[in-house]
Amino acid sequence: MASNEIESLTRLKDAFQTLPGVGARGAERMAFHVLRSSEAEARALADAILAVKRDVFHCSVCYNLTEKNPCGICSDGRRDGAEIWVVEQPKDLMALEATGLVKGVYHVLLGHIAPLEGVEPGDLTIDALVKRVRKGGVREVVLATNPTLEGDGTGLHIQSALQDTGVTITRPSRGLASGSPLEFASPAMLEAAIRGRTKM
Amino acid sequence: MASNEIESLTRLKDAFQTLPGVGARGAERMAFHVLRSSEAEARALADAILAVKRDVFHCSVCYNLTEKNPCGICSDGRRDGAEIWVVEQPKDLMALEATGLVKGVYHVLLGHIAPLEGVEPGDLTIDALVKRVRKGGVREVVLATNPTLEGDGTGLHIQSALQDTGVTITRPSRGLASGSPLEFASPAMLEAAIRGRTKM
Repeated sequence: MASNEIESLTRLKDAFQTLPGVGARGAERMAFHVLRSSEAEARALADAILAVKRDVFHCSVCYNLTEKNPCGICSDGRRDGAEIWVVEQPKDLMALEATGLVKGVYHVLLGHIAPLEGVEPGDLTIDALVKRVRKGGVREVVLATNPTLEGDGTGLHIQSALQDTGVTITRPSRGLASGSPLEFASPAMLEAAIRGRTKM
Repeated sequence: MASNEIESLTRLKDAFQTLPGVGARGAERMAFHVLRSSEAEARALADAILAVKRDVFHCSVCYNLTEKNPCGICSDGRRDGAEIWVVEQPKDLMALEATGLVKGVYHVLLGHIAPLEGVEPGDLTIDALVKRVRKGGVREVVLATNPTLEGDGTGLHIQSALQDTGVTITRPSRGLASGSPLEFASPAMLEAAIRGRTKM
């Protein structure tokens, strides 16, 4: 009955349900959890949501997510700036970083070429990558896009865009299971793919 | 590597992971979703969290969750105030309300007696229920606690506390599956249990 409607609780359930993987039942449990939690816990969650929107942006060099510009990786003198690992998304970068095997830096495309979804090369950060390489000092570009149709297509596009720069272009070996997105690869699979990367 | 740490993103992941049913992977997906969503969407979620803590409290009559006192059900003249449905939690009340079959009002115990967990009768709203009944005008008390060991025990305790008031005490029939909490009962099971409630 409408007389039992608790507007702010319904609003919170609806808000939680917009999150990925959260259904009606899950959203309800989460809303009740917030209701039962302390004022401080609820405020911490709300503040964390707002802080992410306020403080996180893309690095102007590599387009990774960061809270300072350039990002911690680009400004880290111990990294090999002559080796650029090209990935589709920040979460792919994080998966590679978690292996601890990448000594170079990154370039995040922020997507892949997908004409059917209206994503053209110009919508990605490919031009910025080409500029980085043309500026010199880059020895190797590793195309670590996802081993999928779109990822491979994007890799091929970048390969031809970099053709006349003379940079060495490699890609991680197909220890990765074709068709399965990079973010779900196990550390062992990632390690095999990183160590065995092949020249294109 | 630590140089890739995005503090506010980590903080949001951690905050999401405190919610029930949310694991590390789910929390990460949710945090990235917030990052990708618009400023307005993120603010709506944060505001909804704070609003629930600010605006929702327990009705002083029935202890249901509400944004006004007394709650919408207690202050609804069309409800039968002589018939009190006793439930453990607000979510149980909501499950019963969703059937549209309860014409009476409610009393939310805010738990069940569980000595092993340190929950004694005095921790629940049983005294307030007894007072409501003693004030008169109550014909029937329906003990709709969960059909579990603790729920049944709590029902028996309330039954003896109300013994000398002369009120009719009933409970929903055991169309409910014993051992399965009320909040997960199907509408059909709930309907059978409500229609077939038996005298204690």
